[in-house]
Amino acid sequence: MSPSEFEIIDRYFTRRSTLPAHGVSLGIGDDAAILRVPPECELVAAVDTIVQGRHFLASTQPRSIAHRALAVNLSDLAAMGATPAWALLALTLPVAEEHWLSSFAEGWFGLADRHRVELVGGDTTRGPLTVSVQLMGYVPAGTALLRSGACVGDYLVVTGTLGDAGAGLVIARQGDAAGAPGRAAQELLARFDYPQARVDFGIAARGIASGAMDLSDGLAGDLPKLAAASGLAAHVDIERLPLSNALRVYASESQAREWALGAGDDYELLLSVPGARLADLQAAAAAGGLRLTVIGELLQGQGVTWSIHGRAVQPLAHGFDHFR
Amino acid sequence: MSPSEFEIIDRYFTRRSTLPAHGVSLGIGDDAAILRVPPECELVAAVDTIVQGRHFLASTQPRSIAHRALAVNLSDLAAMGATPAWALLALTLPVAEEHWLSSFAEGWFGLADRHRVELVGGDTTRGPLTVSVQLMGYVPAGTALLRSGACVGDYLVVTGTLGDAGAGLVIARQGDAAGAPGRAAQELLARFDYPQARVDFGIAARGIASGAMDLSDGLAGDLPKLAAASGLAAHVDIERLPLSNALRVYASESQAREWALGAGDDYELLLSVPGARLADLQAAAAAGGLRLTVIGELLQGQGVTWSIHGRAVQPLAHGFDHFR
Repeated sequence: MSPSEFEIIDRYFTRRSTLPAHGVSLGIGDDAAILRVPPECELVAAVDTIVQGRHFLASTQPRSIAHRALAVNLSDLAAMGATPAWALLALTLPVAEEHWLSSFAEGWFGLADRHRVELVGGDTTRGPLTVSVQLMGYVPAGTALLRSGACVGDYLVVTGTLGDAGAGLVIARQGDAAGAPGRAAQELLARFDYPQARVDFGIAARGIASGAMDLSDGLAGDLPKLAAASGLAAHVDIERLPLSNALRVYASESQAREWALGAGDDYELLLSVPGARLADLQAAAAAGGLRLTVIGELLQGQGVTWSIHGRAVQPLAHGFDHFR
Repeated sequence: MSPSEFEIIDRYFTRRSTLPAHGVSLGIGDDAAILRVPPECELVAAVDTIVQGRHFLASTQPRSIAHRALAVNLSDLAAMGATPAWALLALTLPVAEEHWLSSFAEGWFGLADRHRVELVGGDTTRGPLTVSVQLMGYVPAGTALLRSGACVGDYLVVTGTLGDAGAGLVIARQGDAAGAPGRAAQELLARFDYPQARVDFGIAARGIASGAMDLSDGLAGDLPKLAAASGLAAHVDIERLPLSNALRVYASESQAREWALGAGDDYELLLSVPGARLADLQAAAAAGGLRLTVIGELLQGQGVTWSIHGRAVQPLAHGFDHFR
């Protein structure tokens, strides 16, 4: 980028905070950032890239793009039970446009401030719109929630509701052509545009849940990864999947279940928890105003089985046509 | 990407190392990596993105692209005097092609192994070719080399030789049209295609140099940043700039100096060092087989001045035409 474009970008991303930054010895402006991981803690690090046309639409607002780029990484740290702390932002832009950057920065700092995440570095390059965020945080050593921690007999639980973002994506794709969306559609659209990572609950679940991962690719795609990492089989009762009122209003039950199983982008947490600790986990969720639903259990063996009202069903690769 | 493409990528990037990884509690395969920063050390983190058509050519070999993506980040850590340890790789590819990935992985692991950098996570997305690497390492707390550390009277020194990568880029752009390159041209091309980060020297310079940065945008663009960060002026004697034999063979002296001042991609280190410690820094460089050259000094005031055989000159924004 030209020097003047660097100046524009600097203006939006170099904040002059009056608060002492949290564990930051040196932030933006040198060759690298210098950070202090708290004593007795391990560093937790994740990276996720979002690309226009693949993870968001050409019509998506810059504010939503920034929110998503940070939220998907917050969700990864939430799934480890980690406290997020520092982010690096690699922003590739076709052109540095002031209005765009202003909206992007608003989306970024709105979410970053809520979770006390400090932007400590990054780079900007010219090219097709791509946002890669690297997020670092920490956990007390040995306490991170892993995909491999689930045990036979553990309950499978999920936070929040599933399928909303899948519906939101369909609504976003329709765009203005469909006319003004109703209230349910607006709620679903917001679930797609502004995913909420379950950071506080992830931290609260440390020492209670036996395993965790976040749902980015949909339950049917993600659950087999948790089961395999734990060396176990899993069973899900599809009728127990938590569906929002908005989704029930917007879609038929079979369509809602299809999105809840197969659509991605919900960024809810999927956890395993021993029966003896389920009440504790539910209390932790309730304390954060978060819904927590038992959807199945972990079993001896391998693979994932699905049933609906006691009848075994098999999700298809591209959706669940037999539910229709 | 499709599941089969993920499998292809997994095959190239998930290595089954027989050695215990260095400070890695959990590597690739969960929502995030878990890492252990050594006691009494600070974490050092950098990110750099390279984009096809901007940082490398469409004709650049995948092996060289991977090398560059890691080397530019190694260079950032070298400039802090940090020991590199863990990398996250965000790879955006138009298509997952086995031969391409094999060559890319070869370039990556060739350089990563040399510096004991462990690949602990990342993601792959489909889109225009973009490689974003986030590199983490550590320094004993309080010992990192900063741009702001230079003092009045310090010498300005650079490692290696300058301008070679600038010539190499010109040669690369000519491509096959120019016929088989001679030996000097091959050396210069290699300097562009396979930049060598001065990692060991950066570590050795801790406690000796007063300040440091890496030269990615060319001396004329980078030195003002170091001077400004230290609140000082700087002066450079252009005739002292270290030029390689290959560059002297390939280009006229004025052209060589132009590249040494204005071209980027050398990834040498620019350091400030008190006169009393210059011999120690030279000994550290010699121990690593690295050339170290005094090119100027830090002065009271602000801005950068340049002279050639005692005559003041002013670099132009786009090269140094008056040297021709």
